[in-house]
Amino acid sequence: MKCELISVGTELLVGDTLNTNAQYLSRELSLLGIRVCYHTTVGDNPNRLEDVMKIALERSDLIVTTGGLGPTQDDLTKEVIAKMFGKKLVQNEKIKEDLLQFFVHREFVMTENNLKQTFIPETAEILPNPCGTAPGILLREQGKIIIMLPGPPREMTRIFEESVLGLINKDQDQLVISRYYNLSDIGESAAEDRLLDLIDAQDNPTIATYAKIGEVLIRITANGKDEKILKALLDHYENIMIERFGENIFAFSKDSLYEAVGKLLLEKNVTIATAESCTGGLIASELTKQPGISKVFGMGIVSYSNEAKQKILHVKEETLVNFGAVSPETAQEMCDNLQKISNTDLAVSVTGIAGPDGGSEEKPIGLVYIGVNYKGITEVIKCHFNGDRKIVQQKTANKVFHLIRKSIVDKVE
Amino acid sequence: MKCELISVGTELLVGDTLNTNAQYLSRELSLLGIRVCYHTTVGDNPNRLEDVMKIALERSDLIVTTGGLGPTQDDLTKEVIAKMFGKKLVQNEKIKEDLLQFFVHREFVMTENNLKQTFIPETAEILPNPCGTAPGILLREQGKIIIMLPGPPREMTRIFEESVLGLINKDQDQLVISRYYNLSDIGESAAEDRLLDLIDAQDNPTIATYAKIGEVLIRITANGKDEKILKALLDHYENIMIERFGENIFAFSKDSLYEAVGKLLLEKNVTIATAESCTGGLIASELTKQPGISKVFGMGIVSYSNEAKQKILHVKEETLVNFGAVSPETAQEMCDNLQKISNTDLAVSVTGIAGPDGGSEEKPIGLVYIGVNYKGITEVIKCHFNGDRKIVQQKTANKVFHLIRKSIVDKVE
Repeated sequence: MKCELISVGTELLVGDTLNTNAQYLSRELSLLGIRVCYHTTVGDNPNRLEDVMKIALERSDLIVTTGGLGPTQDDLTKEVIAKMFGKKLVQNEKIKEDLLQFFVHREFVMTENNLKQTFIPETAEILPNPCGTAPGILLREQGKIIIMLPGPPREMTRIFEESVLGLINKDQDQLVISRYYNLSDIGESAAEDRLLDLIDAQDNPTIATYAKIGEVLIRITANGKDEKILKALLDHYENIMIERFGENIFAFSKDSLYEAVGKLLLEKNVTIATAESCTGGLIASELTKQPGISKVFGMGIVSYSNEAKQKILHVKEETLVNFGAVSPETAQEMCDNLQKISNTDLAVSVTGIAGPDGGSEEKPIGLVYIGVNYKGITEVIKCHFNGDRKIVQQKTANKVFHLIRKSIVDKVE
Repeated sequence: MKCELISVGTELLVGDTLNTNAQYLSRELSLLGIRVCYHTTVGDNPNRLEDVMKIALERSDLIVTTGGLGPTQDDLTKEVIAKMFGKKLVQNEKIKEDLLQFFVHREFVMTENNLKQTFIPETAEILPNPCGTAPGILLREQGKIIIMLPGPPREMTRIFEESVLGLINKDQDQLVISRYYNLSDIGESAAEDRLLDLIDAQDNPTIATYAKIGEVLIRITANGKDEKILKALLDHYENIMIERFGENIFAFSKDSLYEAVGKLLLEKNVTIATAESCTGGLIASELTKQPGISKVFGMGIVSYSNEAKQKILHVKEETLVNFGAVSPETAQEMCDNLQKISNTDLAVSVTGIAGPDGGSEEKPIGLVYIGVNYKGITEVIKCHFNGDRKIVQQKTANKVFHLIRKSIVDKVE
């Protein structure tokens, strides 16, 4: 079943509102095995809405509209659609009753224009709105299904969950199952390169990759009627993923690298401390977004200046003078000393040049040294990241989380 | 000029990605006086993309596509559009050179598929991509303008700002000038309430408000042909803004609160140190996103555990035992001692309960004490924030930045 979403509202076209409805509906419908092929957004303009509806009826089987069902003059969705199918709008007593109750409950005076919402196209089904005044409307015409939902996301999602979901499940008899693999320390094009044969041949399951800074998410989606067969198919592909990406897979879910590492530290009960220069607290900050992290994380030092490196982390003055703050020697001492101060299983240190100032030919912007101390032994890794200040900081943090994970996986039984 | 946005990418149709590009482009183009009449989203499917492009060419004068310009097999936007206009794709030496440099800088091996990005339709103009591998492309055909931009928002916005904006301004002969006022410590509805008379009567200039956690941005946009008249009009409204929001305005720009405070610290040369418990490094991390901040910021302590509070910040054991880690007394000692260790003009401390665990009837989730020490004198502020863990952390950081700004404005001449 091909589906099209039509979002109605001038506020979307001038950029005042972000279209979260289209994302929500796309995700929910895809999970139900419905192929969403188009999103269309159009303003509160009856002629353009009619043109857009005509195109949709030609190319799609299920059309879900959002917006334009409210009480005001420019709410025109059901008027336009009723006219297209030659249907009259008739007042519905049940909706009228609910509407009056809605205003009584809220001790609001109902303005006359609200009654507009009690009219629906003859032959339409009502999809009750438990938290607003405009109900959803379902029409079956010319072999097509048209579902009209109000624009406010809270109302739209409630109607979807309580009425639309059940209707669609009844219409379909197909299962859709997705699995996710999240990778670090590999670029999207390199990841896809290793999947090219599968992507070229893809039919069922389908394979898709999504890139963020430092992460590549792979989604594998299978559909069919038999759950056992689907699971066996996905298991087969899971083996291929592990074979091809083994150590790069940090989560068998959509968890971000930060979340996955936070959970891993907690699961393995590995205590950790951080000493940051160029990342300025980003690593500690991302770690502490994880609920419960205080069980394994107690101390982070942002030793941004040389003075702080000496005073808090006891880095020797001669190290800073002889090798500079951005050097493997400084990273090593920061890490060694942090481990002694914190007495944790893992200690990580970062020193580098995030830019835009402070770079030189010898030590360019993007040069970063990362120290990782596991059980008293420090390894220092040299990195060079491209990008502006924030990107260098974020790539550094990602690399650190990748290295934390690697340490745990390699060294903690 | 009627405009249509076409977003290309299956990730949008399955709901994995929220289409923020459409909102950004709608807002920016509307500000330039361009009427965006349609958004269309289509998957990585060449036939459907071609159909959608045909419809767009019939009803729109300017078509802006996003997505489908990358190195992978399913990136097909320029291939489809070039074919529609009977244009060959030709390799561009400058793009190739930039691409090779991009990989050399990152010390990454370039996979062969990346070269796909060096081909553009003959007769097309290149819109350079300063932070990615796929450049934007501009085509003028059959009286229409087609602009193709890459999908990653960071790259798309940079190309839009640096290349597209200027091109469109040249094509139009109307001036559009916007001014921004960014407010902290006030909610969106309270801000809008103070603007109701102006919003109701708005015509030219137009007024819009945008809310983020802890910030309300007001945009005032005037359009016309005479720059002097526009500026006088905007000056008049600026006076009204200052009259109504005075101390809440932290920036006369789109600068975030974090950026504005970073710049203010640098401008006034006020040195600062941070001691964080429940925000876990977020404050230091946001401060150090500001280029050049090392001139005033040298030291941040993430004293997450009681041990760290004692060891690094010398908070007395009896304070922690008698009053608890989340108490005005602990916030005060953290702040006092931090100031002594760091010897800075300003020192800030934070201790609180971000949740989801650790709350009690006496000390509920969201309870936060903030200490601000200016020139040796500490004030402690008690706050109670609503929301989940990340929201409490962010609201705390915003309040701290608001208090830092207030200290500087009130106390530093």
